[in-house]
Amino acid sequence: MSIDRVYLRRACELAERGRGSTAPNPCVGAVIASGTLTLGEGYHREAGAPHAEIEALRAAAAAGHDVHGATLYVTLEPCDLQGRTPACTQAVLEAGIGRVVIGALDPNPNMAGRGVERLRESIPVAVAGDPWALALIEDFSVWIAGTRPYLTLKMAVSLDGFVAASPGTHWLTGERARAYVRELRSAADAVLVGAGTVRIDDPQLTVRPPRARRRPYQRVVACEADPIPPQSRVLARIDGYAPTIVLAPGGARGRFAELESVARVLYVGDGERLALALAFKALAREGISSVLCEGGPTLAGRLLAAGLVDRLAWLVTPQLFGNVHALRALGSADVTGAGTLQVDCVERLGDDLLVSARVGKDASCSAV
Amino acid sequence: MSIDRVYLRRACELAERGRGSTAPNPCVGAVIASGTLTLGEGYHREAGAPHAEIEALRAAAAAGHDVHGATLYVTLEPCDLQGRTPACTQAVLEAGIGRVVIGALDPNPNMAGRGVERLRESIPVAVAGDPWALALIEDFSVWIAGTRPYLTLKMAVSLDGFVAASPGTHWLTGERARAYVRELRSAADAVLVGAGTVRIDDPQLTVRPPRARRRPYQRVVACEADPIPPQSRVLARIDGYAPTIVLAPGGARGRFAELESVARVLYVGDGERLALALAFKALAREGISSVLCEGGPTLAGRLLAAGLVDRLAWLVTPQLFGNVHALRALGSADVTGAGTLQVDCVERLGDDLLVSARVGKDASCSAV
Repeated sequence: MSIDRVYLRRACELAERGRGSTAPNPCVGAVIASGTLTLGEGYHREAGAPHAEIEALRAAAAAGHDVHGATLYVTLEPCDLQGRTPACTQAVLEAGIGRVVIGALDPNPNMAGRGVERLRESIPVAVAGDPWALALIEDFSVWIAGTRPYLTLKMAVSLDGFVAASPGTHWLTGERARAYVRELRSAADAVLVGAGTVRIDDPQLTVRPPRARRRPYQRVVACEADPIPPQSRVLARIDGYAPTIVLAPGGARGRFAELESVARVLYVGDGERLALALAFKALAREGISSVLCEGGPTLAGRLLAAGLVDRLAWLVTPQLFGNVHALRALGSADVTGAGTLQVDCVERLGDDLLVSARVGKDASCSAV
Repeated sequence: MSIDRVYLRRACELAERGRGSTAPNPCVGAVIASGTLTLGEGYHREAGAPHAEIEALRAAAAAGHDVHGATLYVTLEPCDLQGRTPACTQAVLEAGIGRVVIGALDPNPNMAGRGVERLRESIPVAVAGDPWALALIEDFSVWIAGTRPYLTLKMAVSLDGFVAASPGTHWLTGERARAYVRELRSAADAVLVGAGTVRIDDPQLTVRPPRARRRPYQRVVACEADPIPPQSRVLARIDGYAPTIVLAPGGARGRFAELESVARVLYVGDGERLALALAFKALAREGISSVLCEGGPTLAGRLLAAGLVDRLAWLVTPQLFGNVHALRALGSADVTGAGTLQVDCVERLGDDLLVSARVGKDASCSAV
């Protein structure tokens, strides 16, 4: 591995520290180095805080290091946008950085390449197209390209494809799988479940351990014709959480009135069924850039069928649940057009198995 | 790892070379060593051929090595049975072997411990209880303890638990998964499918690459009320293969008469449904000690429900097949009592995933 790749990997590691706090900005990390000597490191901590390059420059200055002629490694193309603070490109050049290695170009179509161009007027710039750096902004790329949050679908199924051996029964993934799901939850801006899950499991959908967020963690329940009970645990007010969002079909407005005092009810479209693509647009308007959906099967199947899922976090438990009462992983949805899956990680989490896959959007697959 | 463990592992590797040829005997491997010097190696090649210990002694002699005082590593307890040839225990002692390390005791209840006892009258013997050595005889242990073949169930399913998006459609596992299934097939004495698979896929069920076997490879089709077409490819006579066995319910005898000229029809019980436990006893009487079942879903589900499956070779393809026409992995069988699964291997085979698990028999699970 070249030394450039080593520093870029390190910058990616740093970037991950901001995961869950930077939205609607992406996670970015930066390292300033000269030969084998690291002069400064930094990452973007949260929206509104300095960008990663600036953090790294400040760290180098604080340590008394001279960055003249040094190389800046940054996971994402530096911005060339003069805002409340100077553009990162300007700060980098003014500091005397001699060369820049960039992990990935800015996926924002209005910005892509501008930072590179500006820097190249003065110093050499390498764009690595690093897979890890690209993976870091996978969620941001979806968010910035469209008008909907990036959606990860977590399901936990048996080898034969069921979520439970009968309605209302439960099985628990092992501790390692649960810890992983907690991480997934807190890495997103919001957690989403269907009304059936609220009725059957009555979850709180909190994030453990709770931590300071610039914006409160958002819990979302997707309803069809009927509202969830107002006394559901997910609707209880908790410090540090925004009022829970209830997505309701516009045509069922009357029936959801009683929830308006305990939840933020977003009416979507004017039909009797929840129009999922519109619902996701509504979530985007609420400033939510990434969502973890934790089921149940009906909602999961509909989201896949609608082409709204970007990533699967598919937990498989080595059990067989099949019988006439067993609940299918994706209900009765037709998910054959959901897109091609590209597995990028298979891991054993205790006794369970995690298959992590990107859902590639087929041209034929249109959002419903 | 101690040097004993290193040699025992080597003996296990050697044993695997006999896989598929030794039935109804188990695979056994042996190494004779003195300190770090290997004097001789051997394995049981096929039923009727010398046992592994004898092969190793012969190899040492052929190389001109003196085995006096050397250590014999053997994966399975040497036999103490005087047959056409002297008992292995006697041959080992006569050769002057100074110590024996045994991977696993003979699972044959009539033989277990007898070899160890006989050897210990003269020399020190260590019984390692080695997991690999035990895994080597997993199939033989089932076969020798009961009156049915050891059954491996291979299924290939989507993430959401279907074998196909609609009846009659196909999906292909990748080349690496197919190669693995070919290995599984040739490691067993027989391959088994249900009548539905024959009607829909019309497979030949041959073993590739073909190889010399002491006993011809056996193809088996399990039928319910109706026979498969006599012109099915699986019934065509092929050199090196025995006539295909058709398992038929005794109560449907009349309808299967036309198959008797092209297949070996075994009538089981006297009902109109195939009694699977009885069918497996019939296969055992045919000298079949291990079976690979390759589905389809109906047969697979019934075998699991009947508690007849010893091991799952569960291939998962990273696709979603769910829709109203999709075929469930195990049909509508109730497999909740099939036993607890103990995963001992998760592997990526190209794009596919292999979960290999032992099916632990619950006391509550009785064969039907």
